[in-house]
Parts: sequence; structure tokens; C-alpha cells
Amino acid sequence: MSDCTTRTGYTELGASILARAQALAAHTEAPGMMTRSFLTQAHHAAAAQLAEWMAEAGMSVRRDAVGNVIGRYEGVEPGAPALLTGSHFDTVPNGGIYDGNLGILLPIACVARWHAQGRRFAHAIEVIGFAEEEGVRFKATLLGSRAIAGAFDLRVLDNIDAAGVTMRQAIDTAGLGYSCADLAAAAMAPARMLGFLEVHIEQGPVLLDAGLALGVVTGIAGATRMQVEVTGVAGHAGTVPMAGRRDAAMAAAEIALAIEQRCGGIAGLVGTVGQFDVPGGAANVVPGRALFSIDVRAEQDAQREAAVADILAAIERIAARRGVATQVRQTHEARSVPCAPALCGQLEAALQRAGLPVRRLPSGAGHDAMVMAARTDMAMLFVRCGNGGISHNPLETMTAEDAALAARVVSDFIEHFQPSIDPKEHTA
Amino acid sequence: MSDCTTRTGYTELGASILARAQALAAHTEAPGMMTRSFLTQAHHAAAAQLAEWMAEAGMSVRRDAVGNVIGRYEGVEPGAPALLTGSHFDTVPNGGIYDGNLGILLPIACVARWHAQGRRFAHAIEVIGFAEEEGVRFKATLLGSRAIAGAFDLRVLDNIDAAGVTMRQAIDTAGLGYSCADLAAAAMAPARMLGFLEVHIEQGPVLLDAGLALGVVTGIAGATRMQVEVTGVAGHAGTVPMAGRRDAAMAAAEIALAIEQRCGGIAGLVGTVGQFDVPGGAANVVPGRALFSIDVRAEQDAQREAAVADILAAIERIAARRGVATQVRQTHEARSVPCAPALCGQLEAALQRAGLPVRRLPSGAGHDAMVMAARTDMAMLFVRCGNGGISHNPLETMTAEDAALAARVVSDFIEHFQPSIDPKEHTA
Repeated sequence: MSDCTTRTGYTELGASILARAQALAAHTEAPGMMTRSFLTQAHHAAAAQLAEWMAEAGMSVRRDAVGNVIGRYEGVEPGAPALLTGSHFDTVPNGGIYDGNLGILLPIACVARWHAQGRRFAHAIEVIGFAEEEGVRFKATLLGSRAIAGAFDLRVLDNIDAAGVTMRQAIDTAGLGYSCADLAAAAMAPARMLGFLEVHIEQGPVLLDAGLALGVVTGIAGATRMQVEVTGVAGHAGTVPMAGRRDAAMAAAEIALAIEQRCGGIAGLVGTVGQFDVPGGAANVVPGRALFSIDVRAEQDAQREAAVADILAAIERIAARRGVATQVRQTHEARSVPCAPALCGQLEAALQRAGLPVRRLPSGAGHDAMVMAARTDMAMLFVRCGNGGISHNPLETMTAEDAALAARVVSDFIEHFQPSIDPKEHTA
Repeated sequence: MSDCTTRTGYTELGASILARAQALAAHTEAPGMMTRSFLTQAHHAAAAQLAEWMAEAGMSVRRDAVGNVIGRYEGVEPGAPALLTGSHFDTVPNGGIYDGNLGILLPIACVARWHAQGRRFAHAIEVIGFAEEEGVRFKATLLGSRAIAGAFDLRVLDNIDAAGVTMRQAIDTAGLGYSCADLAAAAMAPARMLGFLEVHIEQGPVLLDAGLALGVVTGIAGATRMQVEVTGVAGHAGTVPMAGRRDAAMAAAEIALAIEQRCGGIAGLVGTVGQFDVPGGAANVVPGRALFSIDVRAEQDAQREAAVADILAAIERIAARRGVATQVRQTHEARSVPCAPALCGQLEAALQRAGLPVRRLPSGAGHDAMVMAARTDMAMLFVRCGNGGISHNPLETMTAEDAALAARVVSDFIEHFQPSIDPKEHTA
């Protein structure tokens, strides 16, 4: 990495970050696909690789009970509180290789550069590879950040994977030198954290469409998720006149379009019907039952709540007119999580110093950063996602140029970092 | 049945028909449900029961290679051509007990009455229990009537059931004394047929809503069936703005509503989306793919063809506007089959002689009668279906009073039957 040690070496840094993402992708459960679930062999191998790269970059490396990989780059004075940065190294099945991983590999590259320069700061830097964010193996998300934020819900330890293994068994037998009893000790003291920055590919098309490499996240959208069951009256497709039908699927289709219409045209608000099923449906039977999901997200909670209320009213109105019954079950509700204005301001200043326009955008997806926000100031930097913005998919892509720009901005941000409290006051 | 032998005994005849439908329902593959598939043990037992009742009613009984049960009540001169009547005795899984069976049990009861009276006609009467109409076991419909009409498609003999048994094996080992080589011999010579009448429950709500027990079928609707695949672009439900989406499920929902709107409000035309699926759909993923079925039926072929053309145009228009691709595959197309005006006129005269109003209606469902229509004059009498007109369902029901009225009208129709050609000329 000698060619990355100069001020102008970001191009090579960008290329090396993408090369490492490729190399890390070798650690997969399914050859030819990027599939890396919590505490599998591929997951352990990826953790070992990350630890090796962290150590090469001059960091001391530790693991914790949930399997997080944490590299610490000391400040001028050893033991100083740390600016945290990181993301997750688990993936969805057949996902992309940058989702999560970029946010670990990029700061490792930045630290390696300072390490080569012999440069240290008033604060320490900790790069965290969160062991679990996607929730694939145990249907429980954000395990890594929850452990560090002291927000790990111990009830999920009884969740089982597809093979019937409990999360408790998986953690106890992971060979990390810990058991589930040590999970509480994984929590970092808020006084040791000066802030948290997560670099992540956007997983959407906003920056791509705007022709911009980077964006400053304003906050993580709140979400309401519901499952709806429509019960009409099944009938013979040939013998029940249109006027007499109580068609559950037509009612569901009309509700879906009402959701689309209500959420369309309003910046920052999205509404999705991701599941739509007519159980046991046959071409010659008027559907008596239909099931579908609703997912509504917005950066502004009031905006989301108003949309949800209007959608529920539309469901009632459409059901009454069509003579069908509906049952709506809310399965998830999370308020939005704003990024810390002070950190966002410093990130924007770094973008401006790099001569880049400042584009602010909300994150519609959840991230480890939203868990960390409960304990420390949080900011996120989005990097442009290619291929129409697709993610959770092998087509996910990004460019070395964008990685270079992101490394430059993140380096500059950390070099100019001003904690809201003097790190020396923290050190005690 | 001695109390059914008087001219005024139709009330008892109606009750006895319903009692026999109940008794026949004991022959089921699943206790507590009416499930009787082609050439199962339950099917054989039902055939034996029908044969016994036919013999009691003074008929000579034969089976044919496909398993049809045919009872013949000779005319004044033995060997005369026959007026045929009948329906099917197989059922859908967990279906109703009158669907099909009524059209066999009712004419058996009528013949029993004439037999007790010692009454014969210029023509013979053959009551046919068609062995197969629903297409459940081998995914091939109308096997019984196709065999008699000489329209059996031998290619379906290679179809397999859920256990991997071919139809050929099932027929060859059915113990009927026939093999598949005898299927062609099951065809009746058109010269031996004076016409075909099928009595069937309506399987819809038209007569029920009109407050009428009986209706004269004008024809069997033509049908076009299609499978549509919509391909959009999958995306993250939180990160893809509404404006940039190519949501396959929303496109499908809009098409479904366009079908409903196009087919609504036009008497005799129906359009149904019976299957609607987002394969692998998840609440937090914008659907990239959706599959649905379209079923369009109308008594007037031109009406159906115009509706199908408009639906195809709507699919193209909606797909173009939403930037999704669609693939439409036609899976079924059948022209409408009109009933024979001469026979319908005789049926209407019988209704009028009984003091009943004449209600004409199309059949939206397919029936054995539409196969028989290719070989002989065909008519159908619909009997009111209770419970909102539901059929193919355990809730299917009808009343003894309606069965009595139907028995009276069918008896009177047969007693006054005027073949379009003198049966004596046929007898050769």
C-alpha cells in the first residue's frame, strides 16, 4: 500500500478497497454467490481476514461475544475515547459484496494510510465489523450493533435457524472464547465513544440518478409494516356475475393501488406491497381470500403516520364498498432516527473541501447506525450504487472512483474531526 | 317409491332425489368430505350404486371402457333410438353432493316412476352417469362425455395422477372388463341419439337472486384463459423512490382492475383473475415479478373476443407506462356452444305447462352437454343453487322443492318429447 500513502493516493486506495471486497467475497457459503450468514464457517473466515487486515493497518484487534471484529487505532495518548466507524460483514443470501463490507474495508484502508504515515489523532479510531445485521439466520436483525450499544434483546437467543440450532448454541459453540453470558460485556460505555460514522452503499438509485458519488444521510426512515388478510366469497369464475362478486383479490389489488397513489409524489415517503398471494388460487375460481403486506417508510414520522392512517381508511372504504372483510395486523413499527447535525455538518464540510456538491438524502433502509444512534452521535455517508441502484442482489456494484472519493472524504472528516466533548475530558 | 307413482307425487320424488344424493355421498375418498375422483374405490362404489338404482328403475345397465354407467329404458319398440340425459358422478375435492350427481339421480327417479306405471314411449331413454368431468385426477376434463361423443383425445392417456399412475394404467386395471383399446367403441352412433338433456345445479346465484327454481340454459359460454407474467425491477422497499419503481405487482394489480372494469356491467360477460402471485415476495422488497391468470367468458363469442382484445391492449398500455415487461400465454380457448333451439322450446313449453315462468340464462361453466352438442341436439335445465349460489364447496345446497319441480318439468318434457326426426326412421 505504499502508493496510498501520499495525499494524492486515493485512486489507488479506491481500487484496493474494491479488490479487498472481491477477496473477502471468497468467504461464502455458496460458491459463485455472496452468501455469508452469522457464525457460519464463511463468516468466521471473513472475520479472520478482516482481523488480519486491521492488524496490518496498525490496529489492535479484539472480538466480542456476538462475534464483532473491532480494530482499535490508538490516538496520540493511548486509551483515549474513540471515534467509531464500521458496518456489517454478514450478507443476505445471494447478495452483493459491498453491502456492509464497504463500511469496514474503507476505514481500514484509511487507517492503513495513517499508520504508514505514522499519523495519530487526539482521539482513537475504532473500526467495527458488525457480525450480524441482516437477520437471515435467526430472523433477528442488527445483532452486532445491538450488542455494542447494550441493546441486545436476550429473548432472541432462543430463535432457531433452519437446522433447528438456537442462537444460544451457535454463540456458545462459536469458538470465540465467549458464551452468551458475556453478551452484556460487549456493550461499550458511551463515555468511550465520541461518535459513530457508517459508510454504506446507498442501495437505491438516488445518487446514481443525480450523477453524484456521495451523499450525506439526514436520518434513517421510520417504518410501519402490516400484513393484511382480505376475506371475500369464493365462486365459480364462469357462473358468478361480476356485479355479485366479493372478490378478495380485486379488493387487495385496489388497496395496493391506493397505497401506491397515497405514497407517490411525496419526497421521502414510500409505500410497498411486497407480498401478494391468493392462497390456493385457481384460474377458474373467483378468489375468496387474499393476503398482502404493506411497508410504509418516511424520514418524517408524522408523514408516515398520516400515510398509514389514510391507507387504513382506504382499506375500510374499499372493503365496505366491495363487501369483503379485512384484517390488518401491524408486524413492525419503528420511529425514524435522525443523524446528529453536528456530525453531518462536519461530513458536509469534508465534502466541500473535496470540491464535491453536498447532497442530503434519507436512508430508507435500516442500518447498524440507527442502533448506535441511541448511544452516541451518528452520521452516515452513502456511496453511489451502480446498476440502477440494485442491492441485496449479485448485480450490486459500485466503482473504484467512488470508493476513492469516499476514502478521501472519510479521511478528511476524521482528520478534522471535532468531538462535541474534548476527548481528554473523556479519558479518565 | 310407491308414493311417487301418482301424477301428484313429485314432492316425494324431490325428497327422494335429495335423499339419494346424500346416500351417494357416502362414496367418498375422504370421510366428511365429498371427494370422488375418476376410477378410485369411491368412484367404483358410486358407479355400482347408480347401476343398482338404474336396474331398480327398470333399466338395463351397461358400463363402457371409460367407466360411464348407462341405464337404458326401452321404448315401446325395443332397440329404438334414445333420448339421452345425464351428468357426471365424479366430484372436485371437498365439493358439493349435487354437482353432476343431480343430473343422474333425477332422471333415474323419473324413469322409476314410469316403470312403476308401466309407461313407455316411442323412443328409448338412456340415463348416463358420466364417469369423469372435473379433470381432477389426470388434469383432463370431460372424459366420460368425450368417450360417448367419439371425441376422446387418446393423448391424455399418458397423463399421470399425483401418484404417478398413468390414465392408461388406471383404465386398463379398473376391472371394467375393458382396456384403453376399447375406448373408441364407447362412442355412440349419432343415429342412435335423439337428443341430450342435462339437468344441473346452476353453480351460481342468478336463479337464487331472481327467486326462480328453474332456468333454461341458452348456451354454454365460450372461454379464453391466459397466464400473464409481469417482469419489473426488484428493489429495496425503503430505498427506491416511488417515481423510479418498476413494480411488477402494482402493474399486475392495475391490470386486474382493468379486467374487472372491462367485464363489469355487461350481461353475460365475466372476467376473473383467480391466481395472483409474487414469487418469493418479501415485505421489504419491491416486487420484480408477478404472475396472474385471466379467465374471460361470454355466451357471445364476439363479446368475449372484444373483451380479450381490450384486455390485451390494456396490458400493453399499463406495461408501457410502468416500464415493465409482460408475457401473455393463452392456455385455453373454447368457443361458446349454443343449446338446440328446438329442444329449448320443448323445455320452455314444459315449464309453462307447469305454470312456471321461463327464465333463460347462459351457463358460464363447462358441462358434459357441450361435448354432447357436437353429436346431437342438446339442452340444459338449471336448478337453483342455495347459499348464494356456491358450488365446488361443501356449502353447495339445493332444496327438495326445487328437485320436485325439476322432476316434474323433466318428466313432462320427456313425455311430450318430439324428436326432430321420427325415431322409427332412425331404427334400422
